[in-house]
Amino acid sequence: MENLGFYNGEYDLIENMKIPMNDRVCYFGDGVYDATYSRNHKIFALDEHIDRFYNSAGLLSIKIPYTKEELKDLLQEMVKKVDCGEQFVYWQVTRGTGMRNHIFPEESVKANIWIVLTPRNIKDMSKKIRLITIEDTRFLHCNIKTLNLLPSVMAAQKTEEAGCDEAIFHRGDRVTECAHSNVSIIKNGIFKTAPADNLILPGIARAHIIKMCKRFSIPVDETPFTLKELMEADEVIVTSSGQFCMSACEIDGKPVGGKASEIVERLQNALLEEFLEETI
Amino acid sequence: MENLGFYNGEYDLIENMKIPMNDRVCYFGDGVYDATYSRNHKIFALDEHIDRFYNSAGLLSIKIPYTKEELKDLLQEMVKKVDCGEQFVYWQVTRGTGMRNHIFPEESVKANIWIVLTPRNIKDMSKKIRLITIEDTRFLHCNIKTLNLLPSVMAAQKTEEAGCDEAIFHRGDRVTECAHSNVSIIKNGIFKTAPADNLILPGIARAHIIKMCKRFSIPVDETPFTLKELMEADEVIVTSSGQFCMSACEIDGKPVGGKASEIVERLQNALLEEFLEETI
Repeated sequence: MENLGFYNGEYDLIENMKIPMNDRVCYFGDGVYDATYSRNHKIFALDEHIDRFYNSAGLLSIKIPYTKEELKDLLQEMVKKVDCGEQFVYWQVTRGTGMRNHIFPEESVKANIWIVLTPRNIKDMSKKIRLITIEDTRFLHCNIKTLNLLPSVMAAQKTEEAGCDEAIFHRGDRVTECAHSNVSIIKNGIFKTAPADNLILPGIARAHIIKMCKRFSIPVDETPFTLKELMEADEVIVTSSGQFCMSACEIDGKPVGGKASEIVERLQNALLEEFLEETI
Repeated sequence: MENLGFYNGEYDLIENMKIPMNDRVCYFGDGVYDATYSRNHKIFALDEHIDRFYNSAGLLSIKIPYTKEELKDLLQEMVKKVDCGEQFVYWQVTRGTGMRNHIFPEESVKANIWIVLTPRNIKDMSKKIRLITIEDTRFLHCNIKTLNLLPSVMAAQKTEEAGCDEAIFHRGDRVTECAHSNVSIIKNGIFKTAPADNLILPGIARAHIIKMCKRFSIPVDETPFTLKELMEADEVIVTSSGQFCMSACEIDGKPVGGKASEIVERLQNALLEEFLEETI
């Protein structure tokens, strides 16, 4: 198959798949998701993504109707059905199906499991990216990977219209994260990134880059940083599951970074190597 | 029909309706809605709800593929197909169908129109309601009636578990609104309600009660009020399209209100009369 959409055991090409109007996603965005990449039909960092997925669901009291092992097996099985081995591997759970009612459905109503697989490669990290800044007006549960993504949709569109690659959110002076990535800086040899509180998603790529910094004895400072620090950083680093470590050359039309390219390349190479080794 | 679900021209019992997996509602909650009630198959305050619906969509750059007149005609037509004349009349628009991508789809992709009609009566206003308070952690676009409703879902569940009727949101000391209603107070003969900024939905029932206050020469103060003012109010009033003017007897287990019942009853009677007259 060229791609694959899965819903509660049924699967087909995504464009052929239908779901009930009464799935709670349709009225409330009542669900959580997670996503990673595959290569050679092998899913990268699956345990970490599965752990975060169960954590997101737990924080909203959504009961996933599979054990972690069952869900991992299911994902691995589906990934093999798609022609291309390099895929964007996306899955979500929604809080069941029932007539519209804010209150949770009865215990007997099971959550719905979705999988969406599309051919896609991880990004070329040698490319420098251009960013814009946008006030962060999202809710205070950004640590949960929910399907309430309107502010990220609006930011992504604004980024596209500006001809840029990502939007950096800030609450007043404080930089939080990007519309669908984490953002960090390197200054005077120190890797600085916002702490994993309720204002940012605890990114898996973020965790990996922190691990690599520690391996290379690059000091890591997990404290909030400001827009001023961002603009004056030696490097501005954007991380996500599809772009492990991208460095920025421009923010809001002003040049940034490019002053610690050796550190950036070292991290990029190590992260790419880790990906290639795990998906051989 | 007992109820009716409509999606882009197709309609059936809601429980039989299916929608494409790639409707952007499924990944992002990328849409807006509005809702009111019908009686005798006549929709109450439809012009106001339609205006707010187009405003919500416009604020998110969603293009509704009907004129206001066409959509009103469609809703009126569908309401006649349901057996019961007293319905909860709900409709929404989602930003089209396409492979998951935060960025808006191409111009040629039309938005999807949904209608959901279920038999339901407006609430009996003589019943006193019990409330709980919850910190307002929602995004800063509460003036837009979006499908990103997770905080309201969580609040509704917490309310249900507490055996109460609604949750009052507050940002620190400042009362904003309820999980799916507006909240106002009466103190010393003055009707006080939060201003219609980005922290609350501009409720249609709220607008009607303000109009009634003016008719009865009850002074209206549209400024923010605090939790302390709430607890010490002569009356605490919750308004929504299905419960025009409910007064509370309890908040977080403490008795409130009940000190200006004449004003409350006068408003309730006038609002009910308006509803009955318009839907005769």
